[in-house]
Amino acid sequence: MSAPQAPRPGHQPPAPQPLPGVGAIVAVGSGKGGVGKTTLAVNLAIVLSRLGHRVGLLDADVYGPNVPLMLGVSAQPRVLGDNRIEPLEAHGLKVISVGFLNPGDKPLIWRGPMLHSIIRQFLGSVMWGELDYLIVDLPPGTGDVALSLIQTVPLTGAIVVSTPSDVALQDARKAIEMFRQMKVDVVGMVENMSFFVCPHCNRQTDIFSRGGAEKTAAQFGVPYLGAVELDPEIRKGGDDGRPVVLDGEDAAPARSLFNFARRVIDRVEEIKSTAGEGVIHIQ
Amino acid sequence: MSAPQAPRPGHQPPAPQPLPGVGAIVAVGSGKGGVGKTTLAVNLAIVLSRLGHRVGLLDADVYGPNVPLMLGVSAQPRVLGDNRIEPLEAHGLKVISVGFLNPGDKPLIWRGPMLHSIIRQFLGSVMWGELDYLIVDLPPGTGDVALSLIQTVPLTGAIVVSTPSDVALQDARKAIEMFRQMKVDVVGMVENMSFFVCPHCNRQTDIFSRGGAEKTAAQFGVPYLGAVELDPEIRKGGDDGRPVVLDGEDAAPARSLFNFARRVIDRVEEIKSTAGEGVIHIQ
Repeated sequence: MSAPQAPRPGHQPPAPQPLPGVGAIVAVGSGKGGVGKTTLAVNLAIVLSRLGHRVGLLDADVYGPNVPLMLGVSAQPRVLGDNRIEPLEAHGLKVISVGFLNPGDKPLIWRGPMLHSIIRQFLGSVMWGELDYLIVDLPPGTGDVALSLIQTVPLTGAIVVSTPSDVALQDARKAIEMFRQMKVDVVGMVENMSFFVCPHCNRQTDIFSRGGAEKTAAQFGVPYLGAVELDPEIRKGGDDGRPVVLDGEDAAPARSLFNFARRVIDRVEEIKSTAGEGVIHIQ
Repeated sequence: MSAPQAPRPGHQPPAPQPLPGVGAIVAVGSGKGGVGKTTLAVNLAIVLSRLGHRVGLLDADVYGPNVPLMLGVSAQPRVLGDNRIEPLEAHGLKVISVGFLNPGDKPLIWRGPMLHSIIRQFLGSVMWGELDYLIVDLPPGTGDVALSLIQTVPLTGAIVVSTPSDVALQDARKAIEMFRQMKVDVVGMVENMSFFVCPHCNRQTDIFSRGGAEKTAAQFGVPYLGAVELDPEIRKGGDDGRPVVLDGEDAAPARSLFNFARRVIDRVEEIKSTAGEGVIHIQ
């Protein structure tokens, strides 16, 4: 049984092309699904917008496009004469999701090459306009979509989301290694579902354990972006299409999400300043 | 923007070939990751074994192979002279995982065609021997691995795991539709992380909502296989490599897992009897 090698070793893909007018492209990934990656991506995008930035959100989770449900928006985007696609607007964000193209319960049973072409289309044909941040919600794992994204545009960096459970951290480490292999800066690691406060007795339970993401971040030398608690209000906000951060920073479940977003902003600025040439300058 | 079609429409793959000596092949899938698919697959396999069946467990979750961690087993399987692979033994199960081939933190950054060949190898070259059940832990979603599995061996049926949150159910519906499109019997749907009992005050909180899987199962006309609570002991059992069902049915967190496994047995018998010719008879 021979261990397979990296795909298409002899094949050199075209170099990533910057998106004109987009200041920073930040991917949100995870090794494991169900860790709240999309929840954090959606709330992060809204906080950035509330803090005065121009923000786009690209839902690239082709097999589980949950962004439309979480933002309470679903419509066919307009296609203009020259095959340019107009993103939808929701809660101040420009949004594109594969869920807009494929609403309802029909699954996308696509093999990899099909994914590559749709990612390229989402990046190249959508009229994002001038953005300070384009947040990209990746599918979990280390598969075709992440590869295609990295090969298509220069990512400013990637956020890795994990719960504190050993199982989720095991997969998160693989995601960090993937981004490193692909020469993508890791913005940092955030711990989601960090602890649960019982609404009846106010006592905490570490359902998925606690603190593991901070430890893993330290081991791997990547910044730690904070912890977000397991709060049924955050989950309900997603299920209802009204993310909790819309209520502002003073609402209890939103506080850790605002803190997380502020750390992301600082890290993105840091990466851009050390990179010398930010993608913002390239036309 | 044209909606992509199903892959390789003109290509007719070879018909699935039964695995000689294997009574039932049951896939455990989910639309969304992180819903506890692997936890339920591992505990299901162990319960089946404890109830007297001969059970194999194939970890086909190529991007997040968590079965070795959850079973506390990791070693290189022996490869015999004629390229046959000997599965490992753990807790009474015969086990094969891509995690045995790729231990540690290195990610598998494979595109789809590579996945197809490893799935075929896992099914064709592993010496499973005589089994009553081969449980296959699929990756979440509706992608390459599920397609390859369905095209390689005749599945007796597939279990769909979901949490009760709207977001997870949205993706679970897609998984049900995928199995239907591929003519795979749905064994049923199971609700995981159904509710949480605070260990301090014993009061329940429906962190991920509750009851949605049973409703969805009814809507789609698929059997409901029961609910498993969100219990930190179940998660810890996985993180520690000692699944909770090893303590027997009388241990509180194991009870719902035993009930789930018994419903699976009943449904598999039902599917095999109505199918006329079960895979068990084919040599």
